[in-house]
Amino acid sequence: MKSFEETKQRLRVFCEERDWDQFHSPKNLAMALIVEAAELVEHFQWLSEEQSADLPADKLAAVAQEVADIQIFLVRLADKLDIDLAAAVAAKMAVNEQKYPPEKARGNALKYTEFDDGD
Amino acid sequence: MKSFEETKQRLRVFCEERDWDQFHSPKNLAMALIVEAAELVEHFQWLSEEQSADLPADKLAAVAQEVADIQIFLVRLADKLDIDLAAAVAAKMAVNEQKYPPEKARGNALKYTEFDDGD
Amino acid sequence: MKSFEETKQRLRVFCEERDWDQFHSPKNLAMALIVEAAELVEHFQWLSEEQSADLPADKLAAVAQEVADIQIFLVRLADKLDIDLAAAVAAKMAVNEQKYPPEKARGNALKYTEFDDGD
Amino acid sequence: MKSFEETKQRLRVFCEERDWDQFHSPKNLAMALIVEAAELVEHFQWLSEEQSADLPADKLAAVAQEVADIQIFLVRLADKLDIDLAAAVAAKMAVNEQKYPPEKARGNALKYTEFDDGD
Repeated sequence: MKSFEETKQRLRVFCEERDWDQFHSPKNLAMALIVEAAELVEHFQWLSEEQSADLPADKLAAVAQEVADIQIFLVRLADKLDIDLAAAVAAKMAVNEQKYPPEKARGNALKYTEFDDGD
Repeated sequence: MKSFEETKQRLRVFCEERDWDQFHSPKNLAMALIVEAAELVEHFQWLSEEQSADLPADKLAAVAQEVADIQIFLVRLADKLDIDLAAAVAAKMAVNEQKYPPEKARGNALKYTEFDDGD
Repeated sequence: MKSFEETKQRLRVFCEERDWDQFHSPKNLAMALIVEAAELVEHFQWLSEEQSADLPADKLAAVAQEVADIQIFLVRLADKLDIDLAAAVAAKMAVNEQKYPPEKARGNALKYTEFDDGD
Repeated sequence: MKSFEETKQRLRVFCEERDWDQFHSPKNLAMALIVEAAELVEHFQWLSEEQSADLPADKLAAVAQEVADIQIFLVRLADKLDIDLAAAVAAKMAVNEQKYPPEKARGNALKYTEFDDGD
């Protein structure tokens, strides 16, 4: 399960065996994905940022399960849309490396559209 | 960029060069992740399920970028929490294969807690 | 509980009695709100649009509770930010009525930025 | 626009004039609502809790618009499902007042299922 590709193949078998393709429209999978993302957010909503970085073991295990759920729906959605997930990530990383040059982005969380280009 | 591990390493370099670690508490990363998930959902909100499976090329390209953004924040979050993403996915797939036996799950979208165990 | 104002006041008392102000930063309340929104989405994720409009009574009751949870956190968040919720809604409705003139918006779900202004 | 009822009526007219009923299945409205909730979250994702409680005026105005968008979709969704929003909120407040007695809930953010009932 080291690669996106391997995950995709195992999920295909899993869904075919259960005849779940009929539910897995991209619209529905996007909904399922955001629901899992919210289950992740729920773990952190009342914690301070410091606490969120230092979870007790049982909470960390629960968070790892939510993280896995998000990954599973993301791989599945990409598969159904014929998106090459590994290629999409590589392309977006290249875009980000351009949009956020270290000398402008260092130490601030501005969106690239908010950079002060007056210099 | 074929593996989770490779993505993690490239993201580490990217964030270090920009001194972004200070913003990347798990709490904040979970928020960023769900925001990206919502940008994905937004593409589908007024489409029928059929339309969502048959996107025009420009919309598909935009969706692929959102998918990549989610993947990027997910890898980053897992890294900051020291979660082995590949292992977490493998473990969750094994759990799902147990919880949803094909003979009970076939063709329905019930949660495993909703199975009728009267048989 | 007919008005936003009445809801706000009742929530203030509720939170003060429990000493919950300390958790209710706008950041945290926004997280709690989106978690409730996802619990709403979860009810609909595997349903067709038609099914979502025709819920069985028990499911509808559960959905009503999620709707209430969202409303509660929204009123609370507005209160903590000193936003006049009723005024904000009235202002936004006026904006929408301008941005989406009936003759352009009729029968399509385009964002106003996508209107074809070539006519 | 002081009451839920008044908001509902104005939204009905707005949507009828634009023939938008066809898009407003509960499934779609729930998606639109969570997208707006995420636009709210986005404003806070890189802020500290303290910063989130002390927004500059322009950011506060933008947040007020997102809050209004959420309210608008929530009222609309409740209307389409025939949920009496004011009644649902009152009922949920009563439930919460029972589930979270001040003497148990004071000063902690535990879910009621996590209370230590050993006393």
